[in-house]
Amino acid sequence: MTPAASLVFTTLLSHGPLTRSEVARRTRLSAAAVTKAVRPLMELGYLVEGVHEAARPAVGRPANLVWVDGGRALFIGVKVTGDEIIAVLADLCCRVRVSRHLRLTGRKPETVLPALTALVQELLTEADGFGVRVRGLGIAISGDVDRSDGLVRYSPFLEWRDVPLAEIAGTATGLPVTVDNDVRALTVAEHWFGAGVGLSDFALVTVGAGIGCGLVVNGRVVSGAHGVAGEIGHVSLDPLGPLCHCGNRGCAEAIAADPAILRAVRAATGRQVRDAAEALDLAHGNDPGVRAVYARAGEAIGRAIGFLVNLLGSERVIISGEGLAAYDLVAEGVQDAFAASAYGTAAQCDVMTRPLPFEEWARGAAATAIQSFMGSDMYEE
Amino acid sequence: MTPAASLVFTTLLSHGPLTRSEVARRTRLSAAAVTKAVRPLMELGYLVEGVHEAARPAVGRPANLVWVDGGRALFIGVKVTGDEIIAVLADLCCRVRVSRHLRLTGRKPETVLPALTALVQELLTEADGFGVRVRGLGIAISGDVDRSDGLVRYSPFLEWRDVPLAEIAGTATGLPVTVDNDVRALTVAEHWFGAGVGLSDFALVTVGAGIGCGLVVNGRVVSGAHGVAGEIGHVSLDPLGPLCHCGNRGCAEAIAADPAILRAVRAATGRQVRDAAEALDLAHGNDPGVRAVYARAGEAIGRAIGFLVNLLGSERVIISGEGLAAYDLVAEGVQDAFAASAYGTAAQCDVMTRPLPFEEWARGAAATAIQSFMGSDMYEE
Repeated sequence: MTPAASLVFTTLLSHGPLTRSEVARRTRLSAAAVTKAVRPLMELGYLVEGVHEAARPAVGRPANLVWVDGGRALFIGVKVTGDEIIAVLADLCCRVRVSRHLRLTGRKPETVLPALTALVQELLTEADGFGVRVRGLGIAISGDVDRSDGLVRYSPFLEWRDVPLAEIAGTATGLPVTVDNDVRALTVAEHWFGAGVGLSDFALVTVGAGIGCGLVVNGRVVSGAHGVAGEIGHVSLDPLGPLCHCGNRGCAEAIAADPAILRAVRAATGRQVRDAAEALDLAHGNDPGVRAVYARAGEAIGRAIGFLVNLLGSERVIISGEGLAAYDLVAEGVQDAFAASAYGTAAQCDVMTRPLPFEEWARGAAATAIQSFMGSDMYEE
Repeated sequence: MTPAASLVFTTLLSHGPLTRSEVARRTRLSAAAVTKAVRPLMELGYLVEGVHEAARPAVGRPANLVWVDGGRALFIGVKVTGDEIIAVLADLCCRVRVSRHLRLTGRKPETVLPALTALVQELLTEADGFGVRVRGLGIAISGDVDRSDGLVRYSPFLEWRDVPLAEIAGTATGLPVTVDNDVRALTVAEHWFGAGVGLSDFALVTVGAGIGCGLVVNGRVVSGAHGVAGEIGHVSLDPLGPLCHCGNRGCAEAIAADPAILRAVRAATGRQVRDAAEALDLAHGNDPGVRAVYARAGEAIGRAIGFLVNLLGSERVIISGEGLAAYDLVAEGVQDAFAASAYGTAAQCDVMTRPLPFEEWARGAAATAIQSFMGSDMYEE
């Protein structure tokens, strides 16, 4: 697809049915450029033009709208966590049609890959019922992932190193495969359908087992020249702080991620606290030492977001992840520390929270598959 | 100009004369799109096509090249520091034809603006000799500058607040005026002509009276949704560190900028060290306390660059500014701290130094004027 066609397509994905002149206004393309972009996509049936049910006026002649025909193609999106695989079957509008979960019995590639393949096969069987081909598979994995090579360089949670995932999954399923960092994939979905619609500069910060960050700058997701980007979890906030698995001290992840909070709660209480849920119970029971741990985590998140916004001038920061379960305990710390570290007008950035269940992450993976489809073989049948 | 025309134009600005097919290859545009982009620019005389002296082969038929006719338009670029104004007259290829310096007797707008206007008038008189119109004026100012409004929101060195500089300078000179943050303007010049040519993700970090940073992400300079961006100087590296003028502790600027170094050298030696040059002499005289100050500054710069690269995955970081005078004293600290804080493949980023005299900054201001010219009134005569 040409850059103009891609812009028109994603605009229609984000905003739903629009008139051609509205497409031109939103994309800042000329009417002629919109026509040129739209024509081949209509010929292939990916776009449809006509009177849309959503815009039939009570009185007068209805406007002619253009929209993406969601039913024209299917995609599978998969998110792999340390404990389970979440997979969705999504249409070309990235609407979830079917979703599946599978608990993992181990984290090694030998265990995860056959489970992933089986789950994809299940969804491929489901897809038969729609009578439309599945055109791509997107897989979202935490860690250092090289999308261009489809390589998982290093995933700390899975303890994977240099797994050529796109190649393996492509051979096993026969589908074109896109592998991307999970937070980056979720950022694509947020940009197209979520709290990032219409924004050219925003960040998604996920707090939970780790701290992740997806960035959109100048309207595009940042991937980094060498694959690493958005590593806000390894901003060292305190040279005397707790040791991080990356080798530095005082990283945001070593203060505010679930394992760090758990360690600090155990140290504060002297009790063998089992998991994040138990730590949360103690905090809600008003144990001041435990509350201080969460307050410190909030401060770390707020400062890290402050650095990010000072650097990029983002319009919005969306905080999400399993860590939101404790957000009432960290909210004040986040807000105060962000306000203190934001420089000048950077403080105008809208810092918001938004729960995004793992199914949304899998949907993000499907969105990366749609991206790849748009980039490459859309014109082949 | 259309986005395609702008891409073709800046590619020719960066790379000099190219064949049409080479333009297509570098811009990833189709031959037809290149033709469409080039035609109006040739009709207006901004681009020329023919046999270029730089590419006449010893044997055989010379290739037909396209290039920017530098002599077709002139621009003035101005950099204002706390002490002086540096102004250049540049052609459409952003080659400096004439340059002028003027010492300032004060920093208030009432002092700076008439001096600036006088210097621009001088260059306008010089321009008469070229027989070509000056089509724009670019002004580069440190601090929080809103380019879209031409407003200097806050410049700490000049102690300016809310100065509508574009409006004032436009009225005084009769020229279309572009006002931008000085490091951002220099980043444009580095992207077009310097160490950032051909890179889609790089950063320019300037160390001196303050710490500045210009970012190019996905091929475009980052401006931030609210005007602030690149504030790497206000990454707080140490909650117990020295107090910064921004109100936080341990900011990179409060450790590694010239005033901070001077303060720390005075504290370490108990002597009334006059300026950066004297501090440098003491360090080169092997005073261990003074050397430790520079080592700490180097560590701060390296860590701040590490954060930046972890977040953006930049391919290159260019360190420049007056602070390079002390680079032999900070180099090791920069390298070690960067290596320690870079996460995974982010460490592959090429961290380099590059001296850029103030004339280059003024050239950057001229480059922003060329950008504005390309964006707006290029087709008017």
